[in-house]
Amino acid sequence: MILGRVCGTVVATIEHPFYDGKKQLIVRACLPDGSFDGEKYVIAVDLVGAGVGETVLVEDEGNSARQMMGNLKNAPIRSVIVGIVDQVALG
Amino acid sequence: MILGRVCGTVVATIEHPFYDGKKQLIVRACLPDGSFDGEKYVIAVDLVGAGVGETVLVEDEGNSARQMMGNLKNAPIRSVIVGIVDQVALG
Amino acid sequence: MILGRVCGTVVATIEHPFYDGKKQLIVRACLPDGSFDGEKYVIAVDLVGAGVGETVLVEDEGNSARQMMGNLKNAPIRSVIVGIVDQVALG
Amino acid sequence: MILGRVCGTVVATIEHPFYDGKKQLIVRACLPDGSFDGEKYVIAVDLVGAGVGETVLVEDEGNSARQMMGNLKNAPIRSVIVGIVDQVALG
Amino acid sequence: MILGRVCGTVVATIEHPFYDGKKQLIVRACLPDGSFDGEKYVIAVDLVGAGVGETVLVEDEGNSARQMMGNLKNAPIRSVIVGIVDQVALG
Repeated sequence: MILGRVCGTVVATIEHPFYDGKKQLIVRACLPDGSFDGEKYVIAVDLVGAGVGETVLVEDEGNSARQMMGNLKNAPIRSVIVGIVDQVALG
Repeated sequence: MILGRVCGTVVATIEHPFYDGKKQLIVRACLPDGSFDGEKYVIAVDLVGAGVGETVLVEDEGNSARQMMGNLKNAPIRSVIVGIVDQVALG
Repeated sequence: MILGRVCGTVVATIEHPFYDGKKQLIVRACLPDGSFDGEKYVIAVDLVGAGVGETVLVEDEGNSARQMMGNLKNAPIRSVIVGIVDQVALG
Repeated sequence: MILGRVCGTVVATIEHPFYDGKKQLIVRACLPDGSFDGEKYVIAVDLVGAGVGETVLVEDEGNSARQMMGNLKNAPIRSVIVGIVDQVALG
Repeated sequence: MILGRVCGTVVATIEHPFYDGKKQLIVRACLPDGSFDGEKYVIAVDLVGAGVGETVLVEDEGNSARQMMGNLKNAPIRSVIVGIVDQVALG
C-alpha cells in the first residue's frame, strides 16, 4: 500500500455494472512525511467515504482490491482507497 | 486506473483470435491537469469507441481487463480503455 | 524481494477483518549497500515483529504475500515484511 | 502492450521444458514515434518469427503471455512478442 | 525477463518452509551491453547455482517463478534466477 491525498474526482461513463454509483477519486501519491511524491497519482475507487484533502491508504493490486469489495471475484478493479489515515508516526 | 489521451493507432498482425477486429490505440498517459505525463504511453484495446484526442480512463491490470471484456477468462489482454472522461474535477 | 528499513508506522482504520490487530509499517527501500533507494517506500504488513531501524526483506507480490500469511487466499494484501536481515554479503 | 524494436538474442540454459527450442529476443522499448524509450528493454519469447531491427508489440503480463502460447497454464513466461507492427498512425 | 549480475547474498530468517535451505542472491539489473542499469536490483532465489559475478536471467513474476520451482502453487516467491547467460548477441 501507499499513502496518498485525495485531490479530486473523475466523471466518466464506464460500461460495466460494477462501476454503477461508485465514486472514482484522484489520489496523488505522498511520501511518509506528507509531501507529494512527484506527480505520481492513481484513480482509485473509494471504499471509505474519503473527501478531498484527506490522507488515505491505497491498495494497488487487483486481487487485493477485489477482496476489499467483499470477495467480489468479478470486479474489474485494481486500485482502492482502503482507509483514511489517522496518524503517520516516523522515527 | 490512469488518465490518458488517445494519440493514434497501431496496425499489427497478432495471431490470436481475441484480437480479430479489435482496435489497438496508442494512449499517452496524462496528469490530472490534462498535461502529458512525460513520454509514458500504453497500447490499449478500445472498448468504448474512443477517438484521437479524447481523454480516457485506462485500466492496466490483466484480470480487470478480462472482466471488462465480459468475464473472458482467456483473453490475452492487460490494458483496456474503459471509459471516455466527461469531467475531471480538482480541488 | 527488496531490502528495506523500517521507518515508522501508519495508523488507519481499514474496514476488513484481515487488518484487525495487524501492524502496518513504513519501510523505505534500501540499496544493497544499506543506503536508501531515493524516496521509494512501501507500507507493509509486519509478519516478524520488526522494529524501527531494522533492515528487512519485503515481498511485494499479492499471491506471495497471501502464502506467507499461511495460504490465506482471501487476504487483501500485497506487501509483507517476511524476514529481518542478519547479513548482506557483497562482492 | 508496448512497442519495441528487436536488438539481439540471449543464449542461456534454462532448465524448464517450456524453454526448449524457444528463441529469447532482446527488445528495446520504443516510443510511438519510433525512438527508443531511454534504456528500457525486456527479454521476450518470440511467437512470430521477428528479426533484429523489426518493430514489434510486446505483451508484458504473465497470464496474457500464457494465453498467447495457446492457453498453456503452466508456462513460466511473462513477456512475449505477439506481433510485428505494420504501421503506427499518429495524429 | 531481465539480465542481471550476481553481486552478493542476503542472510535472513524467513519463517516459511519454502525458504529452508534456499539461497537468496542480490542481482543487479544489467543493460544488454552488460553495464549496470543504474542502481536497480532484485533479491532472487537461485535455481541454477549461480555465483557472484555471473550474468543471469531473472524472471520477475510470481506465477512464472512458481512454475519454475516445479509447479509449486504455494511458493511465496516472485523473483527467480532461471538461467546463467552464455551469450548476448546484439545487432
